[in-house]
Amino acid sequence: MAVKNAFYAQSGGVTSVINASACGVIETARRHPESIGKVYAGRNGIIGALQEDLIDTSLEAADSISALRYTPSGAFGSCRYKLKGLDTHRAQYERLIEVFKAHDIGYFFYNGGGDSADTCLKVSQLSSALGYSLCAIHIPKTVDNDLPITDCCPGFGSVAKYIATSVREASFDVASMAKTSTKIFVIEVMGRHAGWIAAAGGLASAPGCELPIVILFPEVPFDEAQFLARVDEMVKQHGYCSIVVSEGVQDRDGKFLSDQGLRDAFGHAQLGGVAPLIANLCREKLGYKYHWAVADYLQRAARHIASKTDVEQAYAVGRAAVELALAGKNAVMPAIVRTSSNPYLWEIGTAELKDVANVEKMMPPDFISEDGFGITEACRSYLLPLIEGEDYPPYRNGLPDYVRLANIAVRKKLAGEFQI
Amino acid sequence: MAVKNAFYAQSGGVTSVINASACGVIETARRHPESIGKVYAGRNGIIGALQEDLIDTSLEAADSISALRYTPSGAFGSCRYKLKGLDTHRAQYERLIEVFKAHDIGYFFYNGGGDSADTCLKVSQLSSALGYSLCAIHIPKTVDNDLPITDCCPGFGSVAKYIATSVREASFDVASMAKTSTKIFVIEVMGRHAGWIAAAGGLASAPGCELPIVILFPEVPFDEAQFLARVDEMVKQHGYCSIVVSEGVQDRDGKFLSDQGLRDAFGHAQLGGVAPLIANLCREKLGYKYHWAVADYLQRAARHIASKTDVEQAYAVGRAAVELALAGKNAVMPAIVRTSSNPYLWEIGTAELKDVANVEKMMPPDFISEDGFGITEACRSYLLPLIEGEDYPPYRNGLPDYVRLANIAVRKKLAGEFQI
Repeated sequence: MAVKNAFYAQSGGVTSVINASACGVIETARRHPESIGKVYAGRNGIIGALQEDLIDTSLEAADSISALRYTPSGAFGSCRYKLKGLDTHRAQYERLIEVFKAHDIGYFFYNGGGDSADTCLKVSQLSSALGYSLCAIHIPKTVDNDLPITDCCPGFGSVAKYIATSVREASFDVASMAKTSTKIFVIEVMGRHAGWIAAAGGLASAPGCELPIVILFPEVPFDEAQFLARVDEMVKQHGYCSIVVSEGVQDRDGKFLSDQGLRDAFGHAQLGGVAPLIANLCREKLGYKYHWAVADYLQRAARHIASKTDVEQAYAVGRAAVELALAGKNAVMPAIVRTSSNPYLWEIGTAELKDVANVEKMMPPDFISEDGFGITEACRSYLLPLIEGEDYPPYRNGLPDYVRLANIAVRKKLAGEFQI
Repeated sequence: MAVKNAFYAQSGGVTSVINASACGVIETARRHPESIGKVYAGRNGIIGALQEDLIDTSLEAADSISALRYTPSGAFGSCRYKLKGLDTHRAQYERLIEVFKAHDIGYFFYNGGGDSADTCLKVSQLSSALGYSLCAIHIPKTVDNDLPITDCCPGFGSVAKYIATSVREASFDVASMAKTSTKIFVIEVMGRHAGWIAAAGGLASAPGCELPIVILFPEVPFDEAQFLARVDEMVKQHGYCSIVVSEGVQDRDGKFLSDQGLRDAFGHAQLGGVAPLIANLCREKLGYKYHWAVADYLQRAARHIASKTDVEQAYAVGRAAVELALAGKNAVMPAIVRTSSNPYLWEIGTAELKDVANVEKMMPPDFISEDGFGITEACRSYLLPLIEGEDYPPYRNGLPDYVRLANIAVRKKLAGEFQI
């Protein structure tokens, strides 16, 4: 097999461990100079390929690449850009091939979620459709944990650990204040249409550390009366209540609660922000003083409290992607296979991209408690291994010492610009 | 000196290290049985004293007390309740003495901020005013870092470390997304009228890790045009911008940008929600896509990323409070004295409560950069030692293993209830 260069790109919302996958890809590729030449990273994802804006990762020192393992965010830049079908947007695909040919790229590693899996699948079909030999492997990543087939998604475990820890810490706080002050604490979490991250908030309460927590899942239509009754019950029993609300929670008509036409002090629509809405509701209807938090990017960037399991899996899928490529696979994704929950054992399997692209994995109904406001033991058993273990970054002057790569561009070989 | 019992209470907003001060008080008291009998904690602060709701800490095992060092929140409950003047509310003070006499309490340790220092000062005057011999020592605590005399306030350093880390992590995140998506990230932080916590956000950018950060301090009247110009400049130069906005930021007329008309028990405005307002402004006037976060309780409860310096100082002021009491002091507070910034050296001094009560320490003008949107080198030199060092809690099943005390009540000796 002739030596070919590899292309690697990060796509969609970044996570605290997507760079650990990049680390897995690059370190593994460097161990196989007989097959893989250089690893070129797309600057800002697939856009870097379309615009021939490639980063030469071979110019980065080994310890810089190694530091990616503990550095959050997307070291090469990510993008939200979905390739359309080959039939309607043939020019984009022809451009990709032009760039890949110019830089002798034979491997395509795409690190992202469901949309990215779709893009990767389309790229994998270039071989036959446009007669260019390319091995396309998708590397799973999404804090939403909503990819099918893989038992979990790298990025999720660390968010889950952050949210579970934060809910526990904030619950301790509000418990201290509840006698004369705050009785309700609301935290808004990510997850879009899937309640996985919200479910992780339920882990804050555990045997020996029971806490009154009410969860609002996107999978459960919001019922105001039942919700208020549950919260009131918690406050009357425990003196306070913590509420974990998913950004994607909807009413019975499928309308996002966060889209309620609220206006801020400037008269602007208040977007996002379902937490203040839920908090206000509790005060207006129940008379309880509240605090609320919106974790937003903090949760998915919080490498300082990453899950060791998650970091190891993120690295492993990066390494496995290269190994699959070396084995001549195309249109596949390394998947995490759970072989045992207790003790937790996992290995890397292989998923066909056609089974992954554009499929969202929702929470199983038996993971949500009957009243719709909590998690079941089955859910707890699934989630707990994913937040297991700590993997602290090094610190310098009191702050995590994250790496920033030089990101030196590969000299362009093509004339002309490509408009995206 | 006859053996007397001690009373300890937590007051106001809790922190991630106020229990480390409690640990310092109780462990030190236990080493002096020749002078101090039992340490009784007020359940929910001073209210516990008024209502004769005392917790017998002598019933807690040594390892439970030791675990307070790494457990956030107020282990005995806190309260927002300010004693009024002796002239107008004599009944409250007479009740305190009645309870103290009934339980043979000769030491009063009050762990709080500026309002609590005032309460402690009033209690310290009981000896002469009402003829009851009591030694009253205040123990500093406030994330707002606004107590005078002491170089810094236990609780602040850990919030500063959390905010600096979170701003760095979120800035890495938005930098990854900026090409096609989010260009502005706004995080709202606590601090009320003082910009100390907001300033800590500035530490996220450091030599070797420069990040475009704009800070909105409560000390600097909000100027929309200048703010937008600065943000736009940052985005044009770096591709993105992180904005740290203090909950206490005000317009030129002294009105809180975030004032929702809510008031807490002290009559202070309940702030919150200025982040979405600032984010919307950036979109409407500059056209940039944004994300925003409100850290709220997460920042002050985040024991998982506490500053080692802060934990050590919190413990030290607790220990020193007992030592001051044993030395026969009254109406004082252990204060942190910085003897050197580089290397950072500190010791415990003593402040007179009359100089502490009801005084707010603002940021010195030379800590804020000339344009009003950043911190100076003087500020950085002050702040950096306070976030130095990590002091991780133990973990169990992926979560910090915080202690919850049994909090067994002392048998009441007085007839009748006291209405607060």
